[in-house]
Amino acid sequence: MIPALINGEFRQSISVFDRGFHYGDGLFETIAVKQGKPLLWQQHMQRLQAGATQLKLHLPDSQLLYREALHLIQQSQQSQFVLKIMISRNNTGRAYYYQPESLSQRVLLLFPWPQYPASYQQQGVKLRFCHHYLSPSPLAGIKHLNRLDQVIARNEWQDASIAEGIVLDNNGNVVEATMSNIFAISAERVIVTPDLTQCGIAGVMRAWLLAYIQQQAWSYQITTLKPSQLKTMQEVFLCNSIIGIWPVTQIEDWHYTIGDMTLKLLQAVAQIN
Amino acid sequence: MIPALINGEFRQSISVFDRGFHYGDGLFETIAVKQGKPLLWQQHMQRLQAGATQLKLHLPDSQLLYREALHLIQQSQQSQFVLKIMISRNNTGRAYYYQPESLSQRVLLLFPWPQYPASYQQQGVKLRFCHHYLSPSPLAGIKHLNRLDQVIARNEWQDASIAEGIVLDNNGNVVEATMSNIFAISAERVIVTPDLTQCGIAGVMRAWLLAYIQQQAWSYQITTLKPSQLKTMQEVFLCNSIIGIWPVTQIEDWHYTIGDMTLKLLQAVAQIN
Repeated sequence: MIPALINGEFRQSISVFDRGFHYGDGLFETIAVKQGKPLLWQQHMQRLQAGATQLKLHLPDSQLLYREALHLIQQSQQSQFVLKIMISRNNTGRAYYYQPESLSQRVLLLFPWPQYPASYQQQGVKLRFCHHYLSPSPLAGIKHLNRLDQVIARNEWQDASIAEGIVLDNNGNVVEATMSNIFAISAERVIVTPDLTQCGIAGVMRAWLLAYIQQQAWSYQITTLKPSQLKTMQEVFLCNSIIGIWPVTQIEDWHYTIGDMTLKLLQAVAQIN
Repeated sequence: MIPALINGEFRQSISVFDRGFHYGDGLFETIAVKQGKPLLWQQHMQRLQAGATQLKLHLPDSQLLYREALHLIQQSQQSQFVLKIMISRNNTGRAYYYQPESLSQRVLLLFPWPQYPASYQQQGVKLRFCHHYLSPSPLAGIKHLNRLDQVIARNEWQDASIAEGIVLDNNGNVVEATMSNIFAISAERVIVTPDLTQCGIAGVMRAWLLAYIQQQAWSYQITTLKPSQLKTMQEVFLCNSIIGIWPVTQIEDWHYTIGDMTLKLLQAVAQIN
């Protein structure tokens, strides 16, 4: 059984009237837990706060969430987990309208660490392009509970040899992969990642990597990225809070090698604690 | 207490792992129940089927849903309700990926009839334009559980004298209102309603009205509609399965009268049983 803490109580169910269920009216964070400790906690809380501001969602105190996360982690003998925190707006009747003072509920779930093949990080992964596309939205960037786009894109393929799918926007620009952000490194050693102000989810690991890259004073660009540009890149990798970094060795028929910059970033990410 | 029938059982809660809650991975229908009977049942089932095909969602048999709806309705002494049917994909783990054979769960909820002022239908309503906009999506038209756009648009205003808000797309074209579809009638007596193949929700009442209008051999167009065109229209009205038709007498500073075509359609909708 997956341990679940809902508004501080160990339960496995929520009200059928929850606005998270009815409208996806809420936010979530997916946090790596290693040696019993949630990683990049502050960064996850900052993104949650940014989303809450946009959705006008009442957030519980982050110290309360942290205490509850540790309480949940202590229930288990394992040391490595995926902690999912979901904040949804309380039921306020059958209508899109909510009372401005509406409270939220908090759900903390502790999932087993996913069993991705070790080869994904060591030998790299193969990607495809998804047919499903994303459109510009005022909700871009935040990690809200409306995730049908990702569900549809991810379920376009069954082939287990393809680890992830790249999703484009309605102008054919690269946005992200279904559950991760994408970076590429050009022949001029410039690190490029798509601009996500119009659509996509700005990952916490992406933000961490951008900060690290700035700190190293490496050249980088947050910009539009066409598939044709991706084809010419020297190195490509994916990132998120759980997988860390997966080097990309193949996108459809294009091949890449795992380069020294990807390896340096892999080493840096391995040090996060 | 709102009566709720979940997979055939009277319950008030769902699993916290439901994919409807996590991703909005599901569909819903909002159905008027009058004299104990769900109205436009076939039409609602057709839209549900169209959405299920698009989401590759396993649908329960519509006769089972109908039997359960009647069972739920019989629990109450009232004769007028809003029946909400929600179909969501069963939990299949913490990931966007689902097993293709994944089953669905069905939730039937029986809400009290909303207490809209009688004046809305008799004297018309006042609308505003929302700032929040919609974008083209492959998911346009279907009534899925990702409804944050509507939540945000509807909560832009608190002023109770404004009944509804018009939502535009990213090109500034009229799409719909937050919970209803919009029709307008030009000086040449052509009935116009926005094309919803790129974004928006194609309402069951909208479809019913379009079929009725065709049957009457009245001129109509399903097309793009600019706010500037809306300004020049003779009559404007909103529709959905619950409100039927609300004549519009004001949009921001533009004023309209309730014309004879709106009144004829109001009479026709009143006959639905």
